Amino acid sequence: MDGKMKVAVMNGIGKMGFEERDIPTPKGDEVLVKLDYVGICGSDLHYYETGAIGDYVVEPPFVLGHEPGGVVVEVGEDVTHLKVGDRVALEPGKTCGHCEFCKEGKYNLCPDVVFFATPPVDGVFQEYVAHEAGLCFKLPDNVSTLEGALIEPLAVGFHAAIQGDAHLGQKAVVMGAGCIGLVSLMALKARGVSEVYVVDIMDKRLEKAMELGATGVINGAKEDVIAKVRELTGGLGTDIVIETAGTQITTSQAIHIAKKGSTIVLVGYSKTGELTLPVSLALDKELTFKTVFRYRHIYPLAIDAVASGKVNLKGIVTDIFPLDEAQKAMDYSVNNKADIVKAVIQINPDAEA
Amino acid sequence: MDGKMKVAVMNGIGKMGFEERDIPTPKGDEVLVKLDYVGICGSDLHYYETGAIGDYVVEPPFVLGHEPGGVVVEVGEDVTHLKVGDRVALEPGKTCGHCEFCKEGKYNLCPDVVFFATPPVDGVFQEYVAHEAGLCFKLPDNVSTLEGALIEPLAVGFHAAIQGDAHLGQKAVVMGAGCIGLVSLMALKARGVSEVYVVDIMDKRLEKAMELGATGVINGAKEDVIAKVRELTGGLGTDIVIETAGTQITTSQAIHIAKKGSTIVLVGYSKTGELTLPVSLALDKELTFKTVFRYRHIYPLAIDAVASGKVNLKGIVTDIFPLDEAQKAMDYSVNNKADIVKAVIQINPDAEA
Amino acid sequence: MDGKMKVAVMNGIGKMGFEERDIPTPKGDEVLVKLDYVGICGSDLHYYETGAIGDYVVEPPFVLGHEPGGVVVEVGEDVTHLKVGDRVALEPGKTCGHCEFCKEGKYNLCPDVVFFATPPVDGVFQEYVAHEAGLCFKLPDNVSTLEGALIEPLAVGFHAAIQGDAHLGQKAVVMGAGCIGLVSLMALKARGVSEVYVVDIMDKRLEKAMELGATGVINGAKEDVIAKVRELTGGLGTDIVIETAGTQITTSQAIHIAKKGSTIVLVGYSKTGELTLPVSLALDKELTFKTVFRYRHIYPLAIDAVASGKVNLKGIVTDIFPLDEAQKAMDYSVNNKADIVKAVIQINPDAEA
Amino acid sequence: MDGKMKVAVMNGIGKMGFEERDIPTPKGDEVLVKLDYVGICGSDLHYYETGAIGDYVVEPPFVLGHEPGGVVVEVGEDVTHLKVGDRVALEPGKTCGHCEFCKEGKYNLCPDVVFFATPPVDGVFQEYVAHEAGLCFKLPDNVSTLEGALIEPLAVGFHAAIQGDAHLGQKAVVMGAGCIGLVSLMALKARGVSEVYVVDIMDKRLEKAMELGATGVINGAKEDVIAKVRELTGGLGTDIVIETAGTQITTSQAIHIAKKGSTIVLVGYSKTGELTLPVSLALDKELTFKTVFRYRHIYPLAIDAVASGKVNLKGIVTDIFPLDEAQKAMDYSVNNKADIVKAVIQINPDAEA
Repeated sequence: MDGKMKVAVMNGIGKMGFEERDIPTPKGDEVLVKLDYVGICGSDLHYYETGAIGDYVVEPPFVLGHEPGGVVVEVGEDVTHLKVGDRVALEPGKTCGHCEFCKEGKYNLCPDVVFFATPPVDGVFQEYVAHEAGLCFKLPDNVSTLEGALIEPLAVGFHAAIQGDAHLGQKAVVMGAGCIGLVSLMALKARGVSEVYVVDIMDKRLEKAMELGATGVINGAKEDVIAKVRELTGGLGTDIVIETAGTQITTSQAIHIAKKGSTIVLVGYSKTGELTLPVSLALDKELTFKTVFRYRHIYPLAIDAVASGKVNLKGIVTDIFPLDEAQKAMDYSVNNKADIVKAVIQINPDAEA
Repeated sequence: MDGKMKVAVMNGIGKMGFEERDIPTPKGDEVLVKLDYVGICGSDLHYYETGAIGDYVVEPPFVLGHEPGGVVVEVGEDVTHLKVGDRVALEPGKTCGHCEFCKEGKYNLCPDVVFFATPPVDGVFQEYVAHEAGLCFKLPDNVSTLEGALIEPLAVGFHAAIQGDAHLGQKAVVMGAGCIGLVSLMALKARGVSEVYVVDIMDKRLEKAMELGATGVINGAKEDVIAKVRELTGGLGTDIVIETAGTQITTSQAIHIAKKGSTIVLVGYSKTGELTLPVSLALDKELTFKTVFRYRHIYPLAIDAVASGKVNLKGIVTDIFPLDEAQKAMDYSVNNKADIVKAVIQINPDAEA
Repeated sequence: MDGKMKVAVMNGIGKMGFEERDIPTPKGDEVLVKLDYVGICGSDLHYYETGAIGDYVVEPPFVLGHEPGGVVVEVGEDVTHLKVGDRVALEPGKTCGHCEFCKEGKYNLCPDVVFFATPPVDGVFQEYVAHEAGLCFKLPDNVSTLEGALIEPLAVGFHAAIQGDAHLGQKAVVMGAGCIGLVSLMALKARGVSEVYVVDIMDKRLEKAMELGATGVINGAKEDVIAKVRELTGGLGTDIVIETAGTQITTSQAIHIAKKGSTIVLVGYSKTGELTLPVSLALDKELTFKTVFRYRHIYPLAIDAVASGKVNLKGIVTDIFPLDEAQKAMDYSVNNKADIVKAVIQINPDAEA
Repeated sequence: MDGKMKVAVMNGIGKMGFEERDIPTPKGDEVLVKLDYVGICGSDLHYYETGAIGDYVVEPPFVLGHEPGGVVVEVGEDVTHLKVGDRVALEPGKTCGHCEFCKEGKYNLCPDVVFFATPPVDGVFQEYVAHEAGLCFKLPDNVSTLEGALIEPLAVGFHAAIQGDAHLGQKAVVMGAGCIGLVSLMALKARGVSEVYVVDIMDKRLEKAMELGATGVINGAKEDVIAKVRELTGGLGTDIVIETAGTQITTSQAIHIAKKGSTIVLVGYSKTGELTLPVSLALDKELTFKTVFRYRHIYPLAIDAVASGKVNLKGIVTDIFPLDEAQKAMDYSVNNKADIVKAVIQINPDAEA
């Protein structure tokens, strides 16, 4: 498809702008997708506010955004499973396919991954993207491209639940009721976990957790989390804890509330990179710690969970901004973290939600 | 068997003494074992030096020792798998058999376990003990009761190796070359692990590690452990790390040297109970942390590994003291921690090694 | 509780009768349960029709029935987790707790199990039973003792689903829509399996499968099962097959419809004990076969699944007979196998359903 | 490398011949390997004798041979881990890298695999081959290219042992003492399995099994296999059985001798594709059946096991033929199946063994 497209770019810390770029041409194994929605992730905000995450440093102009949903408008010659008009969710990381990690099925650990909006690789706050067709997953009729965009954060929740082998008959606690905490809650429920309690310090978020299916919530600023969970579990503790807050307090609480022999899944990053933890207590209980880096093999099942109604993915969207208001979208998101669960940029004004 | 036996008791911090007690009578499901050897564990020394471990407080007179080997001299009426004269290793913890943990096969987590030398339960620095026959494992002819006594610490090493799913084709690092580090090394080798490197700061211990089968050793006081392991693993890191030192430095190093997607097994307790760790790095690598609390289902396979020559268990014994010199044995062990790998009390002067 | 109780006994092949026996006295670790309902299992019918299953031969008078639900009326002195008035489901097998299988958590394989209605151990078509309290699971308020009785067959379905590691995102087929096929269907759905298709040759049973949540059904007498499943799975085959029919045809079909690398769970027993199977095809696909012998660790989660509405357990009940009509219940069940999913004996006329 | 090479071709059933072909040019991600040795596999013989295996039909001229070892003589421009002069073992199957099976790490199930000597893909009874560098594994100095060629069958043995999760402390039986039975034996021992018994009906093969490390052997033509294994396992049965004979008798025996709850690994193909098995007995014991199709992720660990002396791979070689005698090699192998464990074609007359 010849022509130009609008691209929102980060021109510096706290500065968004626009460029016109060529609409890309899909290679043989790619499709060209006209984007409808792209979610704004915490990592986008972090790059926007600070210019870097660890060793990944933004060189402006840089395109943010890695949670896209859209419609196929052109199909590479080798692609057989997609056709023009198909609505798709795009998994943002292209992997090499032949390193040790790819060969063993842990492609999320591929050292040569090319991942949207991870410097120097541009993201997708733009009208079109050409992407490997194998990473574009067709959405069923009852799943919108808005939901398609949000499959990306949901995938993190499912990967956490799977890392913890969450299943029917268990009691779980999710630490943190931000976006990742809430998708973890929904992933746990969708996998059959019987009781899921969510811990946060903001009532508004906890209300959202209740709306989205939490069995109960605990405000850690008002209640003794450890005592409360003991009470809820007959003193035994929980079968699984998913930690999404990344704080020393919540991670230590996780160790205290976990049942002997159980698993804690660490998802949240701490601000300093370090945590001081009661490790001896973890040994006494013979706990297992699993960790989460992105996800693997999740898109089909996550789409299926949304399609079947097991996950209310639209329920996490709190704010939608048009592409033209990218600056406002970013600034508002930075300044209202407590109120926003998930903000989304609507790329295509005509897209249905 | 009527009569009296000699018992070494801890009469207070740093004070050993002796008592004469009745030889116990085995119940229907028990055997009476005349003890040959009992190993001295770090926990025995800790009780001896401080009077307590966490909530477990010694009330003198208290009998230490939970690593026993001996000979069956009387058999309860319901016991069918043992007979008088059988030489046995004694697993020290009696479990309830019907709690959730016992039913699921994780009996080491049984909350009602009765474990030798864990206050208020007496240990076995004494001539005889009546013990549940199901916890007494017959030794083959080529395994001595001295080795039988040491099956207990070896079981910790095997449990660590199994928690880490150690297997052929892997490269491993063991942090710490004390008794538990060395049995972990031998357990890894016996399970087929291809290369095992041992890290410590004392050359004498590292020499012992080489004697017992280490592929190589690293003196953390003289070499850059992280750089060295990267070099030994083509930059990828190790497939498994077993951490037995319990320090912040070695546990942090474990996170740095572990390959992406790999497993760290935490065995060593830190002095304060807490460790400050680079948890974000662990998330970036999607590491798994397994922990070890005692062991389960290990005695038969550990005895088999010794019998088949896969483990040189006598190789860890550095000092043997007669029961009469219990005080000296404890004092010497406390004062020479750096030189001792494993000290043992020889209960029966006529026992062969 | 002193007094007498009514017991329905099998006095010979096809002959039921009644006896009056002493109400049993619970031991310290037992409770006395006044039974409300006891399900009739296929094995009860097999003993009734033929007098034996394999090496297990009925010596009349023999009490059938091993699917009981009732109310605690007396509590042994050592029992702390139950009290008089608690409504319970009874797991029918008492295990030894110390054999290799019990210690490893596979208590269903205990060679010394004492299992209701397995000769020479009597079952529970009777008014009261004293049973190990640890095997009596308290029912929540919204689960009836009728459902409590049916936890036993449901446990087989859950064990099958767990043996197959059934989970969200999978497509499954259940072969056979009898009682075990239907509870397997419900167990798969409760564990989150996305699509479950049920195969049988009787439309009536397939209608019941649709009622209970099947995604679709296939009448193997009218349709080409293999072709149909290929169509439903994009040619790939299913992620899991649970085989409950025990026939050569359905087990062979299972191998044909299973996706490469997937798992087939064998639950149904064949009439002759043998099956001729396309094993080479299974090797080409690198299939795994898991099998099911009773169940383990299932009661709490099965009760929870009923309480939360994930399983419609009453939906499988087709017939209820009073204890006085035990002969009629058995005869009717034998003669109407095609129409009955699950018949139940109501022991207590006042019990609510 | 310009020039011509000699290629042994199958010109029809039972007819070998030679062709001169161009030495291939490696692509950017390939290396050119001058072959030293190529093993003769049972499948090569089957194509040679019958012209087909299942749907795979030979169209002459066709090149057999898929077990190659050789020396790198040219390196594609994108290859970094190999250089000219490196001695390598070649994994024979190129997979697509992006299908569902490849992505999940089960690349041996890739439907688009291109596998040496599987019609219509030619094999490597020839002087040179260009092959994907990622499938060429460098041999350490103490592993010869003869052993390199035999890594292929050894990989099947290791995959079987891994499918069965074979480990220290177990007792195993291998059914069949042909090439695959013997490499399975060695794989089990290398993974630490304590006792491995081998069953066959030919004493000569059983002697070879003893040479290669079997704990004991059973001649099924002379002894009661089931009774003997019960005796060897205290009546309990084995922890793992690897079935390589592919017969109804041995597979049924496997079910009879397996311990309750244990795993049988099916490797051998039956002549008719079907087996009649005592499936009900398998259910009573709650056995698991794993199957083996080729292998995955094995080459590095298999090479390591040979290098460290855990596997005596040369010990399986019974016959070596020069490339010029390809016809004789095939005919002799067909006519002396009972005497041959592994015949090899020496491509390069100067290669060391």
